[in-house]
Amino acid sequence: MIDTILPATGDAVRIGISGAPGAGKSTFIEAFGMLEVERGRRVAVLAVDPSSRVSGGSILGDKTRMDRLAREPDAFIRPSPAGTTLGGIARRSREVLLLCEAAGFDLVLVETVGVGQSELAVADMTDLFVLLVSPGTGDELQGIKRGIMELADLVVVTKADGDLADAANRSVADHRRALRLLRSPRDGLEPTALAVSSTTGDGIVDVADRIDHDHDVLARSGALLANRAEQHRSWFWTEITAGVTTMLHTDPVLAARLSDAEAAVVDHRRSPASAARELLADLFASPPTS
Amino acid sequence: MIDTILPATGDAVRIGISGAPGAGKSTFIEAFGMLEVERGRRVAVLAVDPSSRVSGGSILGDKTRMDRLAREPDAFIRPSPAGTTLGGIARRSREVLLLCEAAGFDLVLVETVGVGQSELAVADMTDLFVLLVSPGTGDELQGIKRGIMELADLVVVTKADGDLADAANRSVADHRRALRLLRSPRDGLEPTALAVSSTTGDGIVDVADRIDHDHDVLARSGALLANRAEQHRSWFWTEITAGVTTMLHTDPVLAARLSDAEAAVVDHRRSPASAARELLADLFASPPTS
Repeated sequence: MIDTILPATGDAVRIGISGAPGAGKSTFIEAFGMLEVERGRRVAVLAVDPSSRVSGGSILGDKTRMDRLAREPDAFIRPSPAGTTLGGIARRSREVLLLCEAAGFDLVLVETVGVGQSELAVADMTDLFVLLVSPGTGDELQGIKRGIMELADLVVVTKADGDLADAANRSVADHRRALRLLRSPRDGLEPTALAVSSTTGDGIVDVADRIDHDHDVLARSGALLANRAEQHRSWFWTEITAGVTTMLHTDPVLAARLSDAEAAVVDHRRSPASAARELLADLFASPPTS
Repeated sequence: MIDTILPATGDAVRIGISGAPGAGKSTFIEAFGMLEVERGRRVAVLAVDPSSRVSGGSILGDKTRMDRLAREPDAFIRPSPAGTTLGGIARRSREVLLLCEAAGFDLVLVETVGVGQSELAVADMTDLFVLLVSPGTGDELQGIKRGIMELADLVVVTKADGDLADAANRSVADHRRALRLLRSPRDGLEPTALAVSSTTGDGIVDVADRIDHDHDVLARSGALLANRAEQHRSWFWTEITAGVTTMLHTDPVLAARLSDAEAAVVDHRRSPASAARELLADLFASPPTS
């Protein structure tokens, strides 16, 4: 089914959006999404949340989190697909992303809560990765998971209004310094930090313009298509690995040998290399019928 | 063979050392290694360098880079194993690391040049990861690859002597701030930055003491063994994936189907999921005899 719509995909700007709980993702996405809708673009919002389960509640929850955007005919908000594994959720999210493109959406926002691995999955399916952070000092920012900051093409410091305005501006300076220190330039982009207030709307236009600018840079240099091709290649290999892993876990005989081998490896009784060789020999000697 | 020596392994402190070319890895490792030898410890230095090929030249090169350490009876310096793929080089390096432990070395330093993926491989086989950087401002540090800084348990700013002493101290402050911003605490360690001069020897003792301290923290909390068990588990799965990949590439029929499928995926003609399903079906329908 996905194969049939592939020719109609590829025209949307794919934006990953992440941030720790409380960073203000929903209010930012609503403000940003409304601006883009006013600019005449169709906006889809997908969630990748390993902790969520699809239910009337969560759909309602997602829509009420962004009630103005949810009422927009040019906007589509989809809760995280059900799934026990991040891999399964990411796979469905990739497919929904392609469906949204085929359906003619101009922007697809893929939102995830800041829980490490899920950011990597989202960065692997998007063109640009935006990290939302609350105003705070360096010490307060330790909650950010290892490696997440380095995925960010743009850091958005939220809540830049009222009492938090000064803290937000300091935070912007901290993050610009950190990005300068820690992000090697990628595809001609220069990662930066911007402050926004989703309530007053200050800074939202700058974020939207920055994203358009970065997307233009990627598109003109050819990096956009090259990155997507590489994403598809790695998605393909992820699927192959997942398929083999599933076979090893589903076939009762193989599953038993797998857990024995894994236990021996973890206890340092077997070397990973020899244990893996033996297990693969078993796998191909008696492939599961699944 | 590795299986037989496994019981004798596990007693060394495994330290990953990385830094861009010119960061002063060799002079630091010589100064640090000599100090540890003077402290009565046996030191092995392994290199993981995907760009190197084993040759009389490279062995000579590695030894002459560290000529004092190379002459120490309690020190062992091994150039990077030959290999066309990082995976192959990393596998052999892991095995040599275990051999060095079985041979009674107290410290195993695994050195790699700063080229992205190789740091991840080295971090995955060591207990502590040390990143060497030259003195410089944030802008000059952009060369550091994405994600590397976040692997670092300790950043060592080299060349902290003469004209560069001030720049080195500023760089230490920059990196401490960056580590505070970007490293979530791991296993009770508090990553920091220290300045050293490998020529005057200033700061080398502090680095050695810090490494001993961090290693004690990991050992006492049980994190050391837990991390190594997890490393072996992931090494095991890497071997399984590598084995399947090798089979797909070596069997002529499968290799042809693989390259067709990969090309279709990269061109967005096939979805990664369906292409992978089809290829796995082929693989298990006619498993290669290798």
